[in-house]
Amino acid sequence: MKFCSNCGSKVSLQVPAGDDRERHVCAECETIHYQNPRIIAGCLPTYEDKVLLCKRAIEPRYGLWTLPAGFMENGESTEQGALRESWEEARAEIHLHGLYTLFSLPHINQVYMLFRGELANLNFAPGIESLEVDLFTEDQVPWDQLAFPVMHKTLRYYFADRPRQAFPIRSETIARSKPPIG
Amino acid sequence: MKFCSNCGSKVSLQVPAGDDRERHVCAECETIHYQNPRIIAGCLPTYEDKVLLCKRAIEPRYGLWTLPAGFMENGESTEQGALRESWEEARAEIHLHGLYTLFSLPHINQVYMLFRGELANLNFAPGIESLEVDLFTEDQVPWDQLAFPVMHKTLRYYFADRPRQAFPIRSETIARSKPPIG
Repeated sequence: MKFCSNCGSKVSLQVPAGDDRERHVCAECETIHYQNPRIIAGCLPTYEDKVLLCKRAIEPRYGLWTLPAGFMENGESTEQGALRESWEEARAEIHLHGLYTLFSLPHINQVYMLFRGELANLNFAPGIESLEVDLFTEDQVPWDQLAFPVMHKTLRYYFADRPRQAFPIRSETIARSKPPIG
Repeated sequence: MKFCSNCGSKVSLQVPAGDDRERHVCAECETIHYQNPRIIAGCLPTYEDKVLLCKRAIEPRYGLWTLPAGFMENGESTEQGALRESWEEARAEIHLHGLYTLFSLPHINQVYMLFRGELANLNFAPGIESLEVDLFTEDQVPWDQLAFPVMHKTLRYYFADRPRQAFPIRSETIARSKPPIG
């Protein structure tokens, strides 16, 4: 951030009075521009013993598989965001069951919120951001071609929890991946 | 938003190619300025049969009681945000138990995430944003002087769930409060 979105003047990093961290502050109009983490809302859609995955048609991670998820929009709830993304990416209609995994990624200022849900029908199809959409049993999941660690973890938790049909919420912080040593 | 925070030019509302909703777009540098909901992270701190509440020393709702909570910052996890706010507002040190209530407030683009937690000690004290901090049994809670509906709901859920010591996550959307009819 270089310019004030309110008045167009240059902003500078300052610690505002009563605050304890640097913000982008406009000296002209005195607006303080706070920046906060963004939510990525998504679904783990299930059908019988299978899960629905989307093959990404966009970067990053083009061609890898993911659960439908994306940035939550203003004016919607977290559940609406999860359902909207499932429709946009997989034309999937889902009965939501509740929040299942919650991941903080502080190094990129993101919070993932993934909900479990059951497919309402089998009319799924690739949306514009997907190359393919399909159902996978645990053995069929392309474990080495998943797009993001949060999706890998969510799927692992799901298949571990499913035999007991108990799905406690899983909350984790994922730190920046470290470069290999040596 | 009137000006581009990247180059200082005027922005206009447009639907970018491949998108389906209006964004603030800069014609000069082509930056698309997405706006997304913000997370408010907080705690429901408990001690024996009591809950900790803070009397607000700031607007809005100056003088009313609340659970410690505030905007999640970049670079932290949701749990860290909840613990930081509890320290800032109540000098409370807490052992977190897990996410308890999740509220979407789509009309103001906010998502509340409140965690249950146990006070690690009784050294709490008002932080700069609080006039008083104290512990309350269910009967002592100032039910008609609570600052926000989300706090009221979280406290009601807690005292209803406590006898069974089972605290399922509660997820709700709170719509804009309607003006009274007639």
